[in-house]
Amino acid sequence: MNETDRLEAFSDAVMAVIITIMAFNVKPPAAASLSAVRASLPELLVYVLSFAIIGTYWNNHHHLLRATHRMSGGVMWSNLHLLFWLSLFPVATGWVGLFPGDALPSAFYGMVGLASAFAYGILVRAIIRANGADSQVARRIGSDLKGKLSPVLYAAGVGLAFATPIAADVVYAAVAAMWFVPDRRLAPGLGMAETKP
Amino acid sequence: MNETDRLEAFSDAVMAVIITIMAFNVKPPAAASLSAVRASLPELLVYVLSFAIIGTYWNNHHHLLRATHRMSGGVMWSNLHLLFWLSLFPVATGWVGLFPGDALPSAFYGMVGLASAFAYGILVRAIIRANGADSQVARRIGSDLKGKLSPVLYAAGVGLAFATPIAADVVYAAVAAMWFVPDRRLAPGLGMAETKP
Amino acid sequence: MNETDRLEAFSDAVMAVIITIMAFNVKPPAAASLSAVRASLPELLVYVLSFAIIGTYWNNHHHLLRATHRMSGGVMWSNLHLLFWLSLFPVATGWVGLFPGDALPSAFYGMVGLASAFAYGILVRAIIRANGADSQVARRIGSDLKGKLSPVLYAAGVGLAFATPIAADVVYAAVAAMWFVPDRRLAPGLGMAETKP
Amino acid sequence: MNETDRLEAFSDAVMAVIITIMAFNVKPPAAASLSAVRASLPELLVYVLSFAIIGTYWNNHHHLLRATHRMSGGVMWSNLHLLFWLSLFPVATGWVGLFPGDALPSAFYGMVGLASAFAYGILVRAIIRANGADSQVARRIGSDLKGKLSPVLYAAGVGLAFATPIAADVVYAAVAAMWFVPDRRLAPGLGMAETKP
Repeated sequence: MNETDRLEAFSDAVMAVIITIMAFNVKPPAAASLSAVRASLPELLVYVLSFAIIGTYWNNHHHLLRATHRMSGGVMWSNLHLLFWLSLFPVATGWVGLFPGDALPSAFYGMVGLASAFAYGILVRAIIRANGADSQVARRIGSDLKGKLSPVLYAAGVGLAFATPIAADVVYAAVAAMWFVPDRRLAPGLGMAETKP
Repeated sequence: MNETDRLEAFSDAVMAVIITIMAFNVKPPAAASLSAVRASLPELLVYVLSFAIIGTYWNNHHHLLRATHRMSGGVMWSNLHLLFWLSLFPVATGWVGLFPGDALPSAFYGMVGLASAFAYGILVRAIIRANGADSQVARRIGSDLKGKLSPVLYAAGVGLAFATPIAADVVYAAVAAMWFVPDRRLAPGLGMAETKP
Repeated sequence: MNETDRLEAFSDAVMAVIITIMAFNVKPPAAASLSAVRASLPELLVYVLSFAIIGTYWNNHHHLLRATHRMSGGVMWSNLHLLFWLSLFPVATGWVGLFPGDALPSAFYGMVGLASAFAYGILVRAIIRANGADSQVARRIGSDLKGKLSPVLYAAGVGLAFATPIAADVVYAAVAAMWFVPDRRLAPGLGMAETKP
Repeated sequence: MNETDRLEAFSDAVMAVIITIMAFNVKPPAAASLSAVRASLPELLVYVLSFAIIGTYWNNHHHLLRATHRMSGGVMWSNLHLLFWLSLFPVATGWVGLFPGDALPSAFYGMVGLASAFAYGILVRAIIRANGADSQVARRIGSDLKGKLSPVLYAAGVGLAFATPIAADVVYAAVAAMWFVPDRRLAPGLGMAETKP
């Protein structure tokens, strides 16, 4: 394994288990009836959102690490720090699923999203520090508009949650959707086929 | 790690956890008696079926990725899309296990199977697009009769579930069994020893 | 990744999750008192046994695959077959933990152990078939006394379980202990440092 | 995969699942109210501590194995032995989370920490035995003050738990914090960027 391999493998494993643990949290409906399905629907919808978020983190993490050549203690710890916040998504997902439309769960979900976005930014900076400002990874990250917009939107969502929880959830979904839009200028790392290392 | 390695590693981890989470869903019988065992039997049988299905996906995914040399953003996302549907197997398995012989759980199981089969087809097409129609992977996939038959049978199962749920389960089991039959012409990827890349 | 790498990675992930899922099954004692700890003790002891068994399988699987150079469809399927039986250890462990001293759970535990031992034997034979009787892996497996003794002892344990469940558990523990004894003649694969491939 | 790769991969997977299983143990608050959040706080705090401990073990394990070139049966078994003790962290975490401020759970937590620290020491010695006292890994481990201090502090914590459980928890947190402090002389393995193998 080269220097980044084990970091990637460990992060992959944590993210894979997070995704599956969330799926496991989606309890089978309590009866074999349509109304029981309807009662399970919020749980399923939050799961879809959280899956999209963790999936996006995995995708971006993958591209980030592919372009990284040098590691450091700081990179190791800031990666663990990111994984810590991501590991709270199952609790946040379960809480919103249990109390959809309530303020606190929705605000907590946004705070986990906000902290994860910050933690990702810290990881990016630690990687740039370890690899140099003129390294391939530093150049590929570039302006990173999405990375700057995400925490702002999450913070807005947390505030909104105390007024209209559902509106906050819509904001979180919008952040997730934003990351699906492939845009080479905004998120150079996503256009993998075109910008191979 | 080369370009496909981390995608494989992440997918493996997700599928491995899905399998084990399903095993975890199989609750120990509520007593140490034969009748308690009998009550747990449907749960165990659906688990065997789901294990066979996820195991087959892992097997086919393995052969598909081994023959793949170029990745793209589309391949990454369609792989995550496949994993999303596979991640619903534990819920579907748990629901059928709780209410064997009921229409809705059985139909839901079929829908998850149908969506997974479609998602696999989308992944295959994304891979062919990224690697070219005359690439090794495109040639090895060939006509893929089983891949075309699976969604048709799952759809039939979903319909059947509303009439005779048990019959639907039998159809799902037949789809799983079909994939066990090694047939180089129908599923070239399975004859690994003979057609090494 | 070379031909055996992904099989190893997937098997590792499944075995790793099995081990951790079993640890998760060990519920924290229901109170902060010594009697609550005593009530949790059987659960903990069965967990220790199951951890030793899965750990031994991982260890042996590791040595087996290291000596393997050619794969086949048969190897893939018999590996999945082994993982299926191993994946039942958490249920068996949980059941014995809930009803220690009862016949059925103890017999079920032995049956899972017996089936796993058979499945491992099938995998070994599939690997020898794919690699040839004069291959390195075939020569290293040799007479494999432990591999032949294990199913016999497990079968005896299953029988014993219906008479004296605790005696059956002792037999299972003896099988696990037998695998800890390093003996190059009996289990050549274990003396890794001495017999490097 | 080279000789240490599969050991690392398996250990990573176990540690990754331990971390996520602990996150899964943090149940969403039972209501959408601040008092429910307050009731969940001890659980969350112990989770943070356990995450930091497992994260540190992963980090140190990573550096230890990177410097290791030769494996042996003893290394395999002492690694499994370490993973066994680490796998008890979720139960210990759950127990302290349920009964914060009680003596037994807090003492059990410390015992798991103590046993893990001993197990890590055994693994280090097994690796040095397999690689020779003048090997790179032996030289890099050096005096290892932190590794010697940890078991002493854990043992003190276990004793304290029977007098003032909260004080014990503070000692455990101090051990975890000690490992965060990067000090090349005390923990040479942590200064990865400077001391590349």
